[in-house]
Amino acid sequence: MNALRHTISLVSLGTFQLVRRTRGPHVQGFLLGTGLGLASFSAVTYAHSAEAVNPKVKGVQMDTSRFMAEPITDSKALLVDKENMRHRMEILIMEIQAEFCRALEAEENCGQKFKVDRWERPEGGGGITCVLQDGDVFEKAGVNISVVTGSLPPAAVQQMRARGKNLKEGASLPFFASGVSAVIHPRNPHVPTIHFNYRYFEVETAKGEKQWWFGGGTDLTPYYLCEKDACHFHQTLKSACDEHDATYYPRFKKWCDDYFRIKHRNESRGIGGIFFDDIDSPNQEAAFNFVSSCAKAVIPSYMPLVRKHKNQEYGNNERQWQLLRRGRYVEFNLIYDRGTKFGLYTPGARYESILMSLPLHARWEYMHEPKSQSEEGKLMKVLKNPKDWV
Amino acid sequence: MNALRHTISLVSLGTFQLVRRTRGPHVQGFLLGTGLGLASFSAVTYAHSAEAVNPKVKGVQMDTSRFMAEPITDSKALLVDKENMRHRMEILIMEIQAEFCRALEAEENCGQKFKVDRWERPEGGGGITCVLQDGDVFEKAGVNISVVTGSLPPAAVQQMRARGKNLKEGASLPFFASGVSAVIHPRNPHVPTIHFNYRYFEVETAKGEKQWWFGGGTDLTPYYLCEKDACHFHQTLKSACDEHDATYYPRFKKWCDDYFRIKHRNESRGIGGIFFDDIDSPNQEAAFNFVSSCAKAVIPSYMPLVRKHKNQEYGNNERQWQLLRRGRYVEFNLIYDRGTKFGLYTPGARYESILMSLPLHARWEYMHEPKSQSEEGKLMKVLKNPKDWV
Repeated sequence: MNALRHTISLVSLGTFQLVRRTRGPHVQGFLLGTGLGLASFSAVTYAHSAEAVNPKVKGVQMDTSRFMAEPITDSKALLVDKENMRHRMEILIMEIQAEFCRALEAEENCGQKFKVDRWERPEGGGGITCVLQDGDVFEKAGVNISVVTGSLPPAAVQQMRARGKNLKEGASLPFFASGVSAVIHPRNPHVPTIHFNYRYFEVETAKGEKQWWFGGGTDLTPYYLCEKDACHFHQTLKSACDEHDATYYPRFKKWCDDYFRIKHRNESRGIGGIFFDDIDSPNQEAAFNFVSSCAKAVIPSYMPLVRKHKNQEYGNNERQWQLLRRGRYVEFNLIYDRGTKFGLYTPGARYESILMSLPLHARWEYMHEPKSQSEEGKLMKVLKNPKDWV
Repeated sequence: MNALRHTISLVSLGTFQLVRRTRGPHVQGFLLGTGLGLASFSAVTYAHSAEAVNPKVKGVQMDTSRFMAEPITDSKALLVDKENMRHRMEILIMEIQAEFCRALEAEENCGQKFKVDRWERPEGGGGITCVLQDGDVFEKAGVNISVVTGSLPPAAVQQMRARGKNLKEGASLPFFASGVSAVIHPRNPHVPTIHFNYRYFEVETAKGEKQWWFGGGTDLTPYYLCEKDACHFHQTLKSACDEHDATYYPRFKKWCDDYFRIKHRNESRGIGGIFFDDIDSPNQEAAFNFVSSCAKAVIPSYMPLVRKHKNQEYGNNERQWQLLRRGRYVEFNLIYDRGTKFGLYTPGARYESILMSLPLHARWEYMHEPKSQSEEGKLMKVLKNPKDWV
């Protein structure tokens, strides 16, 4: 009983620090209003298990100040069991999230900052959602990590089976999923939207066998085509892939073109990038290193394009076209994206984090078709017929 | 060979009349660019079958000037075989479309008119899509009819089975579907959005047995709650139902509340109305009369609300709230609406007609929650917990 009380007081301290770290007027209300009870519950569980594994860790601290918020897993547990792939992935995604958020904040001219929401699920795990909204450079930028455990319902198993994993249909299976995902919608139509997502899964099959795999990708959605930018973006991703396997870039570039297709319009969402769904070879170490390289390539692939175009002039025509293309982005995400469906079918999913990918504004115009010789028409040509950039 | 040439010349005349009737700069381009070949193909088929049924009809004409465009089925065939439910339904939906479009046009202060696109599917049938965009009263109004025959692919059969029809999975089945559907997004946030859809289906089962049924509904999506309006709207629908069966309104009101639910947010799209999916009793005649009454109740249920609120003052706060709620409308339509899914999974479907339901503008804000005592909060209460209005 004393041990439990001691743990709860540690947790209270952690929560206080967390509230202090978050920014913006809504954050504290959210955390204190709905997040606190769950946070305590989950943190108690993890603190207990860390000390059970290694009683010497009492007093050992991880420097978590470089992250956007406290990790989801108790930082002592992360320190004690460093080789565990769940923990390595959690530290990687925390780092990627923080570095990317800070790189984006650095481009804002008026000091706009990310609002940070740390949330936990009663079913297990939680996440950190960072959103910068109505900035002068970024109209809406969302960078999310989540570390989730639980039981997969049949509808979500079905979504996963579409990913090529042969899991028994109809059964609920224990799972672990962690990942970082981001969608950045800039204000200037000459700056492209970027999306990336890197994730790690473990599922226990009906026979008790553990399957694991990584997935991920980075892709670009420009509103106006700049061939030089497209080449730079693809070349940066290719270099990250080539370090690991020369077959990766061509395979994953094609997979990306196939995946981000708005089928009813027979056009792509953007100019692609890389996408892969079930990397479980040559071994776990190599697969993790590959995913790390891809995640670390995001900033060099994208930030130069932001700096190059963020002050470029544009008018109402360009803005209206950007809004129409954002409508297409919404169509893809809500109709086809398996990540969105997987999220919305998972009980207790935090829909605000899943739907943060949607733009601040979007527009649908009946029968809009740009002239083929216009700048808009030039973009449409590569969206209709994806091309090779490197 | 001469008979064929004669038919083609008739068809050319029909197409010319159609082009003359359509309005707006894009229509002729569409019809002449992509619609003409298909229109000729389909019209030849129908003209031929009409004369085969009754050679005396040569020269008999239907007055189609009251419609928005020429019917999809050759008007001679419609005249000859008047008792055929396919034909009765086509005439009903043509009338409903024209009456509703004209009622909406009458509210526009600057004479904005519907753009009319008549289109045909190579697989069989076609439709008439009427869209009024950027009006001073209606920001986007779409009123569509379609009369479609073909073969149902497994994915669409699956959508239909969810509607309670026990059809063999995996098989392609011959089908006929016709219906009218409309979504009206007004500019003033005090004027609600309305949606309605009335449809008739025939499917031939694997055993060669013909199943038929009607479906439909009308529902209202206000941005600000006016209880008097909600009561008027529901009372008008209830009166239309009560003429036919006193159990209809309570059953179909509940069905509507259950159907238009944005499950991940645990809120309704609007304040409901009526919805029914598989009316095939007490007999075809009675079912058709019921659907006719519902379709004819649309104008008296809605137009008084337009006239009452279209000139009401509003500011930027009201506009932003309207755009956020339109984002929720998009979420429902793209994630949950079976009609949209059924449409997008049907090969050769005209996605512009299916997606005309989407608003001109929509907005997504991260973690937006109105204060419970505000006007926005009052609406949210009835969206969270649907109530009885009559």
